[in-house]
Amino acid sequence: MPATFDPRDPDWKARCLASYEQQPVCRTLGIELTVLEPGFCEMRMPFRADLTQQHGYFHAGVVTTLADNAGGFAAYTLMPAGAEVLAAEFKINLLAPAKGEVMIARARVVKPGRTLVITQVEVAMLEEGRERDCALMQQTAICVFPK
Amino acid sequence: MPATFDPRDPDWKARCLASYEQQPVCRTLGIELTVLEPGFCEMRMPFRADLTQQHGYFHAGVVTTLADNAGGFAAYTLMPAGAEVLAAEFKINLLAPAKGEVMIARARVVKPGRTLVITQVEVAMLEEGRERDCALMQQTAICVFPK
Amino acid sequence: MPATFDPRDPDWKARCLASYEQQPVCRTLGIELTVLEPGFCEMRMPFRADLTQQHGYFHAGVVTTLADNAGGFAAYTLMPAGAEVLAAEFKINLLAPAKGEVMIARARVVKPGRTLVITQVEVAMLEEGRERDCALMQQTAICVFPK
Amino acid sequence: MPATFDPRDPDWKARCLASYEQQPVCRTLGIELTVLEPGFCEMRMPFRADLTQQHGYFHAGVVTTLADNAGGFAAYTLMPAGAEVLAAEFKINLLAPAKGEVMIARARVVKPGRTLVITQVEVAMLEEGRERDCALMQQTAICVFPK
Repeated sequence: MPATFDPRDPDWKARCLASYEQQPVCRTLGIELTVLEPGFCEMRMPFRADLTQQHGYFHAGVVTTLADNAGGFAAYTLMPAGAEVLAAEFKINLLAPAKGEVMIARARVVKPGRTLVITQVEVAMLEEGRERDCALMQQTAICVFPK
Repeated sequence: MPATFDPRDPDWKARCLASYEQQPVCRTLGIELTVLEPGFCEMRMPFRADLTQQHGYFHAGVVTTLADNAGGFAAYTLMPAGAEVLAAEFKINLLAPAKGEVMIARARVVKPGRTLVITQVEVAMLEEGRERDCALMQQTAICVFPK
Repeated sequence: MPATFDPRDPDWKARCLASYEQQPVCRTLGIELTVLEPGFCEMRMPFRADLTQQHGYFHAGVVTTLADNAGGFAAYTLMPAGAEVLAAEFKINLLAPAKGEVMIARARVVKPGRTLVITQVEVAMLEEGRERDCALMQQTAICVFPK
Repeated sequence: MPATFDPRDPDWKARCLASYEQQPVCRTLGIELTVLEPGFCEMRMPFRADLTQQHGYFHAGVVTTLADNAGGFAAYTLMPAGAEVLAAEFKINLLAPAKGEVMIARARVVKPGRTLVITQVEVAMLEEGRERDCALMQQTAICVFPK
């Protein structure tokens, strides 16, 4: 569906990276922003046993946290200067246990609206050098301007 | 929509509490199981600045983690002995910033199917003694039997 | 979650009814607007064998059409004069076969935002005088102003 | 995400086409099954003014009906002989007005589970020879065996 996008803010990259730096949750959980392009964001998170559910895999909420974060930043790359991004809603299907050494979320903008930006996020687990899909998200981000 | 439910497993409560104890993510994030009834679960999580997004409120992923957890346990109360519960998918609307001292998720079973159990989860923030809605989730939990 | 709402447009009812009259899909499928209050809408649709799936029940898409319609009008009651309503997205769980004489959708506003209005819609089938839940929707409606 | 799939039922195509023939809603709304491959389904529906909303475009519920149908059949291609397919739940984002001469839904299986099959459906409108995205769905289909 998507394609390439022209960012409306020439400083989109610096703006996004500054916002990422301001998110304590990323440091706390070990979420790294690894790729950022107009309409695209990849984030990675190394496995941590203290964030697992009863079977020893990442909890679905942790999978969602990574996916939602990546989706929000993919959307944010296309927003204008001065804007802030919030997740309005999302839906995620958990496709397989989040088992492996590193979790990777790749988010793409599907529709860059003026107010609402729709993204799609694929989450995979890297296990012994091989990636396996573990979740799929569809997200609505909203562009807001601080008063 | 829902009503009252008859659990199929007489030991539903002990089974659920044991499963809750086995989730490292709950201890790590400070998630407490505060109410458990057949088809219902309430969980609480005190505010933590290190789990916030750029505006100082709980990150949407953290809100989701609490909601998904509560939904899963509400579903799990109605599953048979020997079963395990997994989140198959969910959708959440973030209604307001997760701002306050304590986050509360209340999950109710809407449809207790044999394989799929549908729940609805309301999340509120307790701020200065007053609760304010902050998210609404619709979730599908799946009942699986370990091989 | 919800409560009562004060409409921002004193002519909300006339505006909503006029919009309902302008929807050919309602006439074609036999959708009737049966209750309209601020933040609430009920719609009904008598069973029609030509709108069924392979088992003789209403197709999930038809269930969704009724639910989405009711949600949109519940949201629209709270929008200002001059506004139009569009569904931005929704998620629906099909809880039971849509079997019976009349399908009823009841939509309530959960969050009446300025731009986004979140609704929750319960769909039931009336069969031999008894209602049975058949679907649950969570919907985001957006308020737009024609240029 | 997806790839190619090996159907578990050698007669998958005949089984799917027979099921399509048994859906009155397809005939009533003019939905045509145009491509069917293992894990993939394309359906088309010519524009009809009597299925529009207040602006003269296909109603969101009609868009959803086409998408859900295509998703269900994509899932059904991979199910075993004797199985039936039901939509358990789905979420759809409406990306643009459903304006044009023909609506096209293309559904791909993302995860072919034994019980749950996850699909992703892209809906486009064909207008003056050019396709434009109008909706994106993520769907959970369930495999059931008639008693």
